[in-house]
Formats: sequence, structure tokens, C-alpha cells
Amino acid sequence: MSATMHEGLDLSQIPELAAQLRVDSIRASTAAGSGHPTSSMSAADLLATLVARHLRYDWDHPEADGNDHLIFSKGHASPLLYSVYKATGVVSDEELMTGYRRFDQRLEGHPTPVLPWVDVATGSLGQGLPDGVGVALSGKHLEQAPYRVWVLCGDSEMAEGSVWEALDKASHYGLTNLVTLVDVNRLGQRGPTDLGWDLDAYAARVEGFGARAVIIDGHDVSQIDDALAQADDPGDRPLVILARTVKGKGYSAVEDQEDKHGKPIPQDEEEEALRELGGERHLLVRGPRPPAYTRDRAEARPVQLPTFEVGEELATRKAYGKALVALGHADPRVVALDGEVSNSTGTGDFVAEFPERFFEMYIAEQQMVAAATGLSVRGHIAFASSFAAFLTRAADFVRMAPVSRVDLRMVGSHAGVEIGADGPSQMGLEDLALFAATQGSTVLYPSDATSTAALVEQMAATSGVSYLRTTRGGYPVLYEAGEEFPVGGSKTLVSSASDDVTLIGAGVTLHQALSAAATLAEQGIRARVIDAYSVKPLDAEGIRAAVDATGGRVVVAEDHHAEGGLGAAVLAALATESIQDLHLEHLAVDGVPGSGSTAELLDWAGIDAAHIAAAARSLLEV
Amino acid sequence: MSATMHEGLDLSQIPELAAQLRVDSIRASTAAGSGHPTSSMSAADLLATLVARHLRYDWDHPEADGNDHLIFSKGHASPLLYSVYKATGVVSDEELMTGYRRFDQRLEGHPTPVLPWVDVATGSLGQGLPDGVGVALSGKHLEQAPYRVWVLCGDSEMAEGSVWEALDKASHYGLTNLVTLVDVNRLGQRGPTDLGWDLDAYAARVEGFGARAVIIDGHDVSQIDDALAQADDPGDRPLVILARTVKGKGYSAVEDQEDKHGKPIPQDEEEEALRELGGERHLLVRGPRPPAYTRDRAEARPVQLPTFEVGEELATRKAYGKALVALGHADPRVVALDGEVSNSTGTGDFVAEFPERFFEMYIAEQQMVAAATGLSVRGHIAFASSFAAFLTRAADFVRMAPVSRVDLRMVGSHAGVEIGADGPSQMGLEDLALFAATQGSTVLYPSDATSTAALVEQMAATSGVSYLRTTRGGYPVLYEAGEEFPVGGSKTLVSSASDDVTLIGAGVTLHQALSAAATLAEQGIRARVIDAYSVKPLDAEGIRAAVDATGGRVVVAEDHHAEGGLGAAVLAALATESIQDLHLEHLAVDGVPGSGSTAELLDWAGIDAAHIAAAARSLLEV
Repeated sequence: MSATMHEGLDLSQIPELAAQLRVDSIRASTAAGSGHPTSSMSAADLLATLVARHLRYDWDHPEADGNDHLIFSKGHASPLLYSVYKATGVVSDEELMTGYRRFDQRLEGHPTPVLPWVDVATGSLGQGLPDGVGVALSGKHLEQAPYRVWVLCGDSEMAEGSVWEALDKASHYGLTNLVTLVDVNRLGQRGPTDLGWDLDAYAARVEGFGARAVIIDGHDVSQIDDALAQADDPGDRPLVILARTVKGKGYSAVEDQEDKHGKPIPQDEEEEALRELGGERHLLVRGPRPPAYTRDRAEARPVQLPTFEVGEELATRKAYGKALVALGHADPRVVALDGEVSNSTGTGDFVAEFPERFFEMYIAEQQMVAAATGLSVRGHIAFASSFAAFLTRAADFVRMAPVSRVDLRMVGSHAGVEIGADGPSQMGLEDLALFAATQGSTVLYPSDATSTAALVEQMAATSGVSYLRTTRGGYPVLYEAGEEFPVGGSKTLVSSASDDVTLIGAGVTLHQALSAAATLAEQGIRARVIDAYSVKPLDAEGIRAAVDATGGRVVVAEDHHAEGGLGAAVLAALATESIQDLHLEHLAVDGVPGSGSTAELLDWAGIDAAHIAAAARSLLEV
Repeated sequence: MSATMHEGLDLSQIPELAAQLRVDSIRASTAAGSGHPTSSMSAADLLATLVARHLRYDWDHPEADGNDHLIFSKGHASPLLYSVYKATGVVSDEELMTGYRRFDQRLEGHPTPVLPWVDVATGSLGQGLPDGVGVALSGKHLEQAPYRVWVLCGDSEMAEGSVWEALDKASHYGLTNLVTLVDVNRLGQRGPTDLGWDLDAYAARVEGFGARAVIIDGHDVSQIDDALAQADDPGDRPLVILARTVKGKGYSAVEDQEDKHGKPIPQDEEEEALRELGGERHLLVRGPRPPAYTRDRAEARPVQLPTFEVGEELATRKAYGKALVALGHADPRVVALDGEVSNSTGTGDFVAEFPERFFEMYIAEQQMVAAATGLSVRGHIAFASSFAAFLTRAADFVRMAPVSRVDLRMVGSHAGVEIGADGPSQMGLEDLALFAATQGSTVLYPSDATSTAALVEQMAATSGVSYLRTTRGGYPVLYEAGEEFPVGGSKTLVSSASDDVTLIGAGVTLHQALSAAATLAEQGIRARVIDAYSVKPLDAEGIRAAVDATGGRVVVAEDHHAEGGLGAAVLAALATESIQDLHLEHLAVDGVPGSGSTAELLDWAGIDAAHIAAAARSLLEV
């Protein structure tokens, strides 16, 4: 095939490009034997017009700072996206036909940043728009950049609350650089959507949430073009284009039909479908180029971490705030987000010092994590905080972060029953399990202010998802300033040449373990005490050595449920080599706690010093 | 103290009751030394009017079927709720003053169903309203009951997307029996809310989502009374009362002040506060009684489970659907919900058979789980399904289910890399960790159709949170019809008197383990193969015995990340007694998968038969 590169297209040429996108969406998915051609065909006119006439993008330089961003929140329309890539010449027809959905190929079933033109992975619906809000926040408020963020949403995903969290924040932050296109094709996977083609109902919601709704016929390229052009003169509200479309548009046998979702056109129908669409084309088209813009890349300076006196009592959540301020001074890329509890998480210190680098996400944890994801796309070092318990609200966004290959730094305060009177709804007891099960994650759980500050500094340099768990109450500083806390390390706080048992704790249980060791010492039992501040990766070698040195006797105590936390990590570490003669007591929270004082609840849970000491004694009696 | 019980109150008496609720909110939280009096005081007029004149409730019989439901979505206003209970006489002044937020007492920091008048635990904002939608769904569509559901929301929590998922479903299902009261006091924890006192903005959102918004002055009892009375003549849309209120109303020193959230009035100010409010009162007030209504309590019949031929290939997700239909025939309490993927999860069979007992939740997993929670409150046996990956969207609702003491039955399909071409966004690889870390949960992972059906029947009788993990692809039936699969059990599919190694799998990896055992047998290695269909509780005893019998050599393979799943459960089970000479290989998914065929991805992940066999051989070479 040969083709001429078109720089932009007249409106009259758009239908040809749109037909090509439909044809290629069919060809790619039929060749793969799976995929979503009908969901692609409904949006083909939107994308053809956008890419040929409005998206400002240097396809030869996807890393260019001035490029617009294009996010397919309806990630299952990947055949359309990849057909767009073919039309711009960055993906070959051969790759489209042989690579789509194949093993070890980059044209995956749903788009991921394995592709240089993709910002974030989509496919879990209702995430692309919230992620786009994060990218737009950077462009509008941190970079003052000329780029726009275009997000294609499906109508089904408008049922996700996260979409409304996104529009709420988009209007709150005046994101006039964000354009949402909603492909209202009326049909979801299983059948009709809730609102069908009631475009006015969508518009009322969009306008209610403070954005500007424009209703168009999504197959009328003139209407599409006019609507997209409004991005050039954005006014004061984010723009949402509500496009009435027909699912499967272009091939009569599937148009507006139920039960055609996620099904390729059968091979024996493909010829007829392509005939209806006018056959294969190989247009090469590129739209407007981005304006000249290079973002400010300020150098980071060395961090001057706050220091603390050994013995001074300070909550790790407060130490986090102080360390974050120090990071903020050292590196202008450091930004923070919080879910309306910055006066509890410690982030308030950063808000006071760097208000222009803080984004209040109100009580919308999904959007908070999505915004951090979008900010990571733009190279910021974003820390997002809330109560550990409430971060679980964003579990699906955390799950997708490794697929998006972004760096996500999260801080969960108020861990465990330690919080006391507020009761179980506020207690993070599952957060370690959630974050540890996240692909490639780093999970940190400091016990004092010095280690907290050191670990916060390391999080800034840690890629992937990292999580810091902090504690509500104040506890004594254990370490001198300057002590190093490598990720994957541990600290031995009490030891002798002939210890009887190893006690492993982190956070509040480390302080309980220290107290238990003192009690045991009075009873003639020598306990080695280990601070497992790095839950993942755990210091497997160090812990194995300690357990070996103490006759295989080990007590692990944690303010978390028994599953998926510190105890599980210790067991997995011990199991990496053959286990000989292991005697382990795992103390963790079982049952639904109530209110009470910290001491009462640690006792109730069986994770306080007395229970740790008793467990140690029981191991020695065996 | 002595008091006369008032049956209802004139409007003129409401301010006295409201003042009492404010006084008691202050007294209780000051006595406890923690709590949220200012968030209680803003809503005192709303609650006084509601409880004395509109809430139809038999306080002596909280279990009465006709009772209205009162849900404090803003659970931190617990002092107000408990003051209401005192005013109705079901909680004594002494309990309020000495029990609130104390250890081992029922007046917890945030309300939970430890109290007989509380339906669901709140305190994770944005959950009470979605839960209330579930209760109202039952009243309107399953029971045709006369009760109404009253939900008190804070304005801060209107930032949670889950609230909009709830209103969307409330209007979709015409829940005119649901009344939402929003206490718009303009201040959140950290400072002003996004929308402040812009009641019109809230109204536009509410109306956009299909509900009826009524704006009132939340301290004008006449306006409140008129608005609440609209519940008696509900029209065709759910009612949302937007009440403009003042945080801390009634004590001038804290009224409309920032930085007064979650802070009791200091003891040395309490006298002045009470003086401003006119001092202590001890009114006893009850409002209207519920109409006579007794719900239909149909008897369940024995379940006739579907049967399958050994060797027949069927996906467990499809077997789930067939079993659910069988349950539906046996027990009218069985209902189902799905997140717009019922044609993938297997639930479609139930939809076809019992459309009136199915609730389509569209793509709103948080609301789906919340609705199941509310349905459980009303005694239904609700099964909620989506892709395993997307259930993580509702993690915070799952976390709260044990605190709410509800039975939650969830089914996640499309587990692991097994799904193939759709790619990582659709692969459940963290779901076992999420559900296993849930307090008191049951986690089931069948490998064939027979065991799936048996386990679905058991889920119906299982209390607490239970989770069934199903697989996309079809695999051979392994068990004869009638085989029993107790929760906490396992099956040994291959064994001899002198086995060399134990292979443990579940779901797709069990089939791979069987294949590996066949290969190993050809090589003269005897493998014992265990189907660990019950991941939590695991058959610790059975697995320990098998591992002991095979020289401590065990391979665990799972289509899940290494953390928090089957391997972790096996290790924890083995560690419950001293471990002697354990040699364990744990095969799990590490890295971000791409697209591909099932076989390619199982190989890539290192969890297919070849890798299992190789791991077994490596253990024997040690």
C-alpha cells in the first residue's frame, strides 16, 4: 500500500477517514478473534474529526511537552484507538492485523502505556476521566501548559460514581483544558443503558456538576467539528460533548443491536461489512501540531529532613507531614493531595507551606488516587493521603496503577485498633493486604518519627505503587537523626549473643514488643526485637537469620487482620528457603472491634505487650 | 428524673426537643472526651421534627416489619442519634453519659447494628445512602411494604461518587419510599465544603439525577415539617431534602466555626453551652406508630442442584448461574444483583428465570454491594456478581459489611490471567487478598461445575461476607453429582500410599496440577493433588497431613498475585503448628500481564502444568 500524508483534512474528507477507522476496527478484531468493534464504530466519526482537525499532537514525538493528551476511558474501544494510530502512521497495518490482542504484543486488548501514545491504562470503566482530571490539573495549575486533555467516555461508564467525582473536581478546579466526549450509543454490554438516548438527562447531570454540556449528533461531522472547536475558546467551565451515536454504526447487521457487544464480526461476514463501508482505505492523516512549549524542569536540591530527639513523643502521621514539607522545599515536583482530612493525616503542614502545590480532593478517594495517577503521568511526585481505612475506597484505582505504569505514593493514617474511640469504621485493618497484593508495590510501616521521615524521602524516589502506613497516637522516637532505613531492610533494636525468641513488630506493635522484651528480660527470657518497617519488600534474610538464631521461635504482632499483612509477609519470607523447626505465634486482630481506649483495644485484640510476652513464653514452654 | 411520654409533639414543642438533642449531644461527647457535637447540633431540628412527627417506629419492637428505617449516613453525628434514642426512652441518660465511646459498650463512636435500632454501620462516608437504597429496593419492589427509609447525609459526603450512584439507582427504581435529608452545614472536617451553602447547586445535581429536591431552612421547624410531610405523598421520584443548617447551631462559641469538627465542647465550657441552650431537659417523645404490616415469610424448599457429567466442559461462572437458578426455585428470599455484566458472570440465567428478583445495578459496583447490604438487612439472600477485578471497586463497602453484621454474598468471575486476550485491566489478581482480609469472611474457589453448584448452595447458608471466585474458560467436570464440599474442606484427587510431593491448586491451577501429576507419574514421581476449593477457611489439617506425608514437599500454584491468596493461606495453615522440614514452592503471578491466549499467559505466569511439574522436580532434587 502507498499513501500520502494529509496534514489535517477538510470536513468533507472526514467521512472517508471515519470509514477507514470502522473498517480497520472490524479487520483488527476479526483477525484477533476478539475485541469490541461495535463500541469502536459508534465513536469513529468523533475520533476522525478530533484527530484530523483538533488534536494537537506531534506523532513523531509522543514525549513532546506541548502535545494534547488523548485518553480512551472506554478502553474496550481499543480497535478504534489503534486504527487511529494506523491512520497517523505510527502503527502499521501489519501490526494492527497481526499484533492486536496477541501475546507479547503491544496492541493489548485494552490500551496500556506500553504504547508511547497512551498515558494511562484503561479498561476498568470510569477511570480514564478521573485520570484525565489529574493530567488537566497539572496543565492548568502546575504547568500553565497549552495542552488540552481529551477523554472519550462510554455512556455505560457514566453510571460509575467516579465519573461524577471527576466532573465535580474538573469544575471545582476550572479545568477548561479538559474536554470529555461521551459516546452515547445507548447500549452497554448486557443491553440498554439506564438513560438510553436521553441526552437531556445526561446534560442536566453534567450541568448540575458545573460543566458545560453540548449535545450533538455524533455522526454529523459538522456538528462534531463545531463542538470540538469550542475547546479553542473554552470559557470558564470544562466542556462535555454528549454525542448521540449508534453502536455498530456503518454495518447494518449490527447497528443498534443488542447482543453485539464485545463480539468481532464473524470472518464470513467481514467481506459484507467492509463492502457496506466502502472497503479498505489507507489514508494517512495528521492533525494540527502542538504549540511550542517546554515545561520547566527545575533541579531538585538535597533534602533536609526534619530531625527528632530520641524519646520525644510524636505521631508518625505528624512526622510524615514534616517530612513532606522538607521534600517540598527540596523538589518542586513534589505535590500533595488529600481527601478532606489533611488536618488528620499530617498533610496539613504541606498545605500551609505550599498551597499552590496541594489539591484538596474533598471526600472523593477514587478521584484523589486518579488525580495522583494523572499527576504522575506529567512527572510530578504526588503524595495522596487519607485514613488508611478510606484508601480502600480507591482499591480498583490502586489495582490499575501498575498497569498504567505510574508511580503512586499513598499515605494511610489511623492504622488499626490503635485509634481507639472512633470505632471500627475508621480503623485501617485491611490496608496492608490491599497494598501488598498490588503488583510491584512497596509497603512501609514506620514506628517512629525518624524512620518515617527517612522512608518518606525514599518514597519520593520509589517507582510503582508505594504505601506508607501511619499511626494516630504519639510514640517515642527510637532512632537518632541520620539513621538510614533502606527499603527492604529492618532494624534490630534489642539483641544479645544468645536470644531465646524473636519479636517482630511494626508501628504500634513495635513499641509493644519493646515493652514485652523488657518484661521478658525481667523474667530471664532474652528477646530479640525487630522493627519490620519495610513490610514489602521484607528483610527476608535478616528475619530468617534472627529466627534461626532464636531457635526458630518468633512472635509477630500486627495491628491488622491476620491475612495479607506483616505476619503473612514474615511467613512468605521464611518459606523462601526450607523451613526447619519453626515455632511461630502470629498475633493479629480478629473480630469486629468496638470503641475504647488504645490500651483497651490493643489488649482486646491480643496484640499488646502482655500478649506478646505471653506468646513468647508459650513458645519457650513447648 | 421523671418524664411523661409524649405521643407526637405539636410543632411548637419541637424546638424544646431539638434543644434537648443538642444539650445531650454536648453532654455525651464532653463526658466521653471525644465525638462530634457540632455535626450533631446542625441536624438537631431535622431529627427532632422527624422523630416526633414523621418517623413511624415502634420503639419497643425494633424488629417490627412495618417500622420505618432511619440511617445516619453521617455516622459521626452519633451523639445526635443516641440523644434521639434517649428521647424515645430506649437508651437511658446514664447509658448516654457513661457508655458513649467507652470500651465494651454499645454506644460506639459511629453507630453499628450492635444497637437494635441501627440497620447498617456507618462512619465511612457515602455508604449510608447507598445502603438505604438497598433497604428501599426491598420495601418497594420485593415486599411492597409501607415502611419508608430516611437517610441523614452530611454535605461533605456528597463529594463521594457512591452518593450519586445511589441517587441514580433510587430514581431508576422509583424509590419513592426513600427520603434523603442532607444537612448542609457548609463545613467539613478540615474546612469549608466544595459547594458551601450553594443549595441551588446541590438541587441541580439532585434533580439531574432524577430525584426531587426540596430546599429548606434546616432550623425552621415549620419548613422542616412541611418537607418531611411530602414523604406521605411521594409522587414518582425519590425525595431529597436539602437543609441549610449551621454547624454547632445553638452554642454561639462554636456556631459556623472552622476547626470545631470532631471536637467535644471542653468541660470548662459545657456549663455555658448548656446555659445558652436552656439547660438539661428530659423529654420523652415518640412519634407515629408504624402501620400494621407483616412480611411474607415463605418457607424454603430443598434445593435441587443442577448436575453435570464428569468430563463435560463447563465454565464455573456458568455453573454458578445454573446453581443460582436452582436456589431461586427453592427459596424466594434469594435475589441477585449484577454490575451490567450478567451475561458474563452467569447471573443472566437467574435474570431470565426471576426477573422480578434481579436488580441491574449497571456499572456501579459500590452501589451493587451497598444494595446487597441493604437487602441483607431485610432478610434477603442476595448474590452480587461482577468480574472479580471490578469487585475491588467496592472494597470499602466490603470492609464495612462485617461491621454492619450483614451477610454479603459476592461472586467474581474472570479470575486471573486465565481470561486471556482482554488483558490485565480485566484480570482479577488481587481479589482473594481483598476478600480474605475481610473480617470473618469465607472465600471459595471451585474448579469444576459440580463443586461450584455445591458451594453456591452453601453460600446461601453462610453468614458474614462470602466470596466465590469463578473462571472464564470451560474445564472438565471432576466430581460426580452429589459429592459434598464442606466449607473448610479440600479434596484429594490423586494420591497413593507413598507420594513424593503435594500439589495444591484451585480453579484453573487445579487442572494444571492434575496435568502436572500425570506428567510426573510418567517420570516416576508420585504427586498428591489437592483441590483447595475452600481458601478461607482452608483445610489446614488436611493440607498439613498431605504435606507431612510427602516429606514436607509442596507446590502451591495460583492464578493470583503471590500476596494474600491461596499460597499465603497454605503457609498460614502450615504455621499453626510447628513446621518441620518444609520445602515449599509457591507459583503465582508476578509482573503485569499482557494479552494472549490462556495457555500463553499461564506459561508466562509460570503457573501451568509444565511449571508445576518443574517445581515439583526441583523440590525432589534438593
